[in-house]
Amino acid sequence: MTGIAVIGVGMGEPEHLTGQAVAALNSVDVFFALDKGSAADELFHLRHDLCRRVITSHPYRFVDVEDPRRDRGAADYGRAVADWIAARATALGEAIRRELGPGERGGLLAWGDPAFYDSTLRVLDALLDPVDVEVIPGLSSIQMLAAAHRISLTRVGRPVQVTTGRRLAACGFPSDCDDVVVMLDPECSFRDVDHVGVTIYWGAYLGSEHQILISGELDAVADEIVAARAEAKRRRGWVMDTYLLRRSS
Amino acid sequence: MTGIAVIGVGMGEPEHLTGQAVAALNSVDVFFALDKGSAADELFHLRHDLCRRVITSHPYRFVDVEDPRRDRGAADYGRAVADWIAARATALGEAIRRELGPGERGGLLAWGDPAFYDSTLRVLDALLDPVDVEVIPGLSSIQMLAAAHRISLTRVGRPVQVTTGRRLAACGFPSDCDDVVVMLDPECSFRDVDHVGVTIYWGAYLGSEHQILISGELDAVADEIVAARAEAKRRRGWVMDTYLLRRSS
Repeated sequence: MTGIAVIGVGMGEPEHLTGQAVAALNSVDVFFALDKGSAADELFHLRHDLCRRVITSHPYRFVDVEDPRRDRGAADYGRAVADWIAARATALGEAIRRELGPGERGGLLAWGDPAFYDSTLRVLDALLDPVDVEVIPGLSSIQMLAAAHRISLTRVGRPVQVTTGRRLAACGFPSDCDDVVVMLDPECSFRDVDHVGVTIYWGAYLGSEHQILISGELDAVADEIVAARAEAKRRRGWVMDTYLLRRSS
Repeated sequence: MTGIAVIGVGMGEPEHLTGQAVAALNSVDVFFALDKGSAADELFHLRHDLCRRVITSHPYRFVDVEDPRRDRGAADYGRAVADWIAARATALGEAIRRELGPGERGGLLAWGDPAFYDSTLRVLDALLDPVDVEVIPGLSSIQMLAAAHRISLTRVGRPVQVTTGRRLAACGFPSDCDDVVVMLDPECSFRDVDHVGVTIYWGAYLGSEHQILISGELDAVADEIVAARAEAKRRRGWVMDTYLLRRSS
């Protein structure tokens, strides 16, 4: 097996991996790590720790790919992200050419599931020299959120929208959908939506021993969530969280 | 461990189970089966086969719960489903009282992930005698769809809506969302939306050896999908499928 495997690893707990993901991890010779950043130290340890715990078959190595700076203050968000993905693709392409020997298989770990707000597949699509890509799905944080709160994300016959904090802040609650899952929201944009009749189900470090859950009427618990999030971030240096907003109707 | 475990089992392939799901399956004494119906025979075999392949620890037994008839022609869809869930809860509650001994743990298998259009948690919420419920997430068909097509369900900074075929037929493409995942659509409602600029990624029996994938401009492949779906259903007696509609913008 050659090519590149993109492996969804959930929050990085071995028990949340599928058998298919464990087998894929065990098939990889070279892991390319793209996601350095402010959370780099902790993610570095999570990634290495996960591989050490589940890879039993053969030696493997990690290659850190130079992470291009992203212009987070850019007015044109889409353009800034596109530039950043192109720069990442250049860096990854060089690393693959340099590091992946003949007959070797590369791997990229995706936190959660590569289907939701993960740039890995976009970076691979932007490679100048195409590679064979296999995608192994993993549990996303939104599924762990639902499981931890013991709720369904969907109500009978009704839609659920998955969106970002940035978009929630810009566009508000969608007009035609009363269930909204929000990812990537360091700004706690739930504070800005109309609170009337809205319940929030929030979770951080989902599925890990550090998991924090808060739910209730948005009015009543918004401040508590903001405080819990800030405290968690202060303590560990990073926080990954997500939430569902459910509007009565 | 007592109470009831709701275990997401994906499409029922052992390799798609997480380690946590395998452990949960191995902790259950009595599995309650709710999902009889037209696909009953095949689902019956899938369920028993899965348990036989992954449960190694101790004996277990299956209890089929009488499945109340659902009024599929009712004008008020929400009401009809609510009545059906209440009737299912009554039947499940009786089965739990009758079959689950002291200190025993019950289990319910959910196809895909219990977070998306699965009635199991609603049925448990409607029990007259509450039970302790633990939810173990599983890979949903929409993640397997994305992985099989090697795509992300989300585009940069943009939302994705998960909805049903019935709602797509009634409401059309949502106005504020250009990526729509459709589940539960035996009517192939993608035929009814405006085809201009829309790409479809369709899959059936995802993650299994019978997997079928078709993608392309909706205009070009809609008929092919309808034909493939009908042929698959004719051959196996049932079909589970899902798709993403992606509108250029």
